[in-house]
Amino acid sequence: MRVVITGAFGFLGHRLTGTLLRTRTFRGAPITRLVLADRIVQPDSPAAKDPLVDIVHGDLIDRLDDLFAEPVDVLFHLAAAVSAECEADFDLGMSSNVDTTRALLDAARAQSTAGGPKPRVVFASSLAVYGSSPELPLPEVVSESSLPVPRTSYGTQKLICEHLIADYTRRGFLDGRVARLMTVAVRPGRPNAAASGFLSGIIREPLAGLPATCPVRPDLRVALASPRRTVKGLLRVAEAERGGLRGRALVNLPALTVSVTDMLATLRQVAGDAVADLVTITPDPAIEAIVGSWPALFDNGRAAGLGLEPDPSFLAVVQDYLADHPDAVPGPS
Amino acid sequence: MRVVITGAFGFLGHRLTGTLLRTRTFRGAPITRLVLADRIVQPDSPAAKDPLVDIVHGDLIDRLDDLFAEPVDVLFHLAAAVSAECEADFDLGMSSNVDTTRALLDAARAQSTAGGPKPRVVFASSLAVYGSSPELPLPEVVSESSLPVPRTSYGTQKLICEHLIADYTRRGFLDGRVARLMTVAVRPGRPNAAASGFLSGIIREPLAGLPATCPVRPDLRVALASPRRTVKGLLRVAEAERGGLRGRALVNLPALTVSVTDMLATLRQVAGDAVADLVTITPDPAIEAIVGSWPALFDNGRAAGLGLEPDPSFLAVVQDYLADHPDAVPGPS
Repeated sequence: MRVVITGAFGFLGHRLTGTLLRTRTFRGAPITRLVLADRIVQPDSPAAKDPLVDIVHGDLIDRLDDLFAEPVDVLFHLAAAVSAECEADFDLGMSSNVDTTRALLDAARAQSTAGGPKPRVVFASSLAVYGSSPELPLPEVVSESSLPVPRTSYGTQKLICEHLIADYTRRGFLDGRVARLMTVAVRPGRPNAAASGFLSGIIREPLAGLPATCPVRPDLRVALASPRRTVKGLLRVAEAERGGLRGRALVNLPALTVSVTDMLATLRQVAGDAVADLVTITPDPAIEAIVGSWPALFDNGRAAGLGLEPDPSFLAVVQDYLADHPDAVPGPS
Repeated sequence: MRVVITGAFGFLGHRLTGTLLRTRTFRGAPITRLVLADRIVQPDSPAAKDPLVDIVHGDLIDRLDDLFAEPVDVLFHLAAAVSAECEADFDLGMSSNVDTTRALLDAARAQSTAGGPKPRVVFASSLAVYGSSPELPLPEVVSESSLPVPRTSYGTQKLICEHLIADYTRRGFLDGRVARLMTVAVRPGRPNAAASGFLSGIIREPLAGLPATCPVRPDLRVALASPRRTVKGLLRVAEAERGGLRGRALVNLPALTVSVTDMLATLRQVAGDAVADLVTITPDPAIEAIVGSWPALFDNGRAAGLGLEPDPSFLAVVQDYLADHPDAVPGPS
């Protein structure tokens, strides 16, 4: 079982790698090689040094031959340009998110049509495929049956890839599955160019003793999932029997709905007033337009059918973050 | 006002050309040049010899510089590989339907971002963006709010282009509009590689004294529009005020719902038993799978808001065909 992860040194890729290196199996079969592909790699990380691991370093589009040098059984395609990047640079988004994905799908197809195994391809899509606008509001509760009308280039690009994957799957070129990710919070590390990045920043930065800016009105509700639940969801969608996916290999990962006000109240509850007061509300219309167009409330029924549940509360999300990142809060000086 | 039509020597392109050469205006403004682009042209046709007309002959992807040599005000993009072709040759469909459309959109974008006019781009999409399957049936009545889950590569490719056009429009690169065409019948001429071609053939061929095969069960219901109504719909979507499109420049053209049984009964009524008996029912699972996955019953409300109504009856469709094509029925020998 040769498993490839693109974007493997990104935040979710790193966690997924960790999980697979602990179990060393996929659907009960031993993983014989785990290929970690990324533009930026950490060659000295424990994962990179694991004897099961091969590293493929560089732009995906240039390294397809390496990824498919041996048959690929499972491909987790996590690499992407993120939302605010794609709004700022249209061509970057089209190239990174559409052209690269299509090239990967074509490489998978070339493998199966040449008589090799039919790769299982797991695509990390996004709630950003949905968009709300005054003329065309989303339903109050969104499900996989809701009509996606993206309001960002990022969401458009993810949706295009979803349709490609469905067609490549229907034609028998590969076994594609789509997991639509909610906003993942609380992320560790530095802010990225995702429009939703502040939803981690307003918790992570104050906990670390740093000021943070919230660029949206606090009553905005958002659909979140912890990193733990997100990686679990990706794996569950990957491992599911095709029949269990009921004719459409597409799942909205389960969402916890919270308002920014709730999030800040949780921060105050966990860390006290001095920490919570490090957050300043300074609306940024560009960010608000993107994040505000996304749905906040999901029918999690299809995910529940796969045994996936949302985080029970935002308090639990913050507690997970603190448990997973013991250095998130500076020690007494 | 420089107007470009791709696929201009195809069946619909030819009719659209005829209409524009009669009115010689678009939204009340004079058409100064009408550019007819196609892979196959009829240089001796009256349209080709009209002093308003320029011909661009060849594969679109190679002739973009010619199309955009002068500013394009309106672009009707009708050229496409058709449904059965795209099922038979996946790469052809992706190249003709996705890559070529994207290249056209990028050329339009280059024009507007260089300070030229923002082209109005009218894209001929298809009811094939919708697909029904046992696991995921379509609603009984389909509207623009219904979830498109294509069951063909052709439908997937059209849907991808719709999303690209929406995003290019949202970003201000162009003014895109999508008209989803119903199955157009009765078409004149020879059968093409569209899976729906028989829906013209079972009327056209017997009227001409020729045998015809119906490859689906006769109780199958289909959503049709006459060539007249289809061209009228394309023009109406093209000429509509952006505000009249209510936030989403996408319209399902109005559909007349009929069963194949109804169609054959109409043929019998118009032309008699000897003609109707020229049709043989011989189901073809490949054709039935494609055409049977398409919706048959549409909520035509959005089209009605633009003043577009479906054909009143299949009898009227056949009568239009006979009026438009006096040579459709052989004279007494």
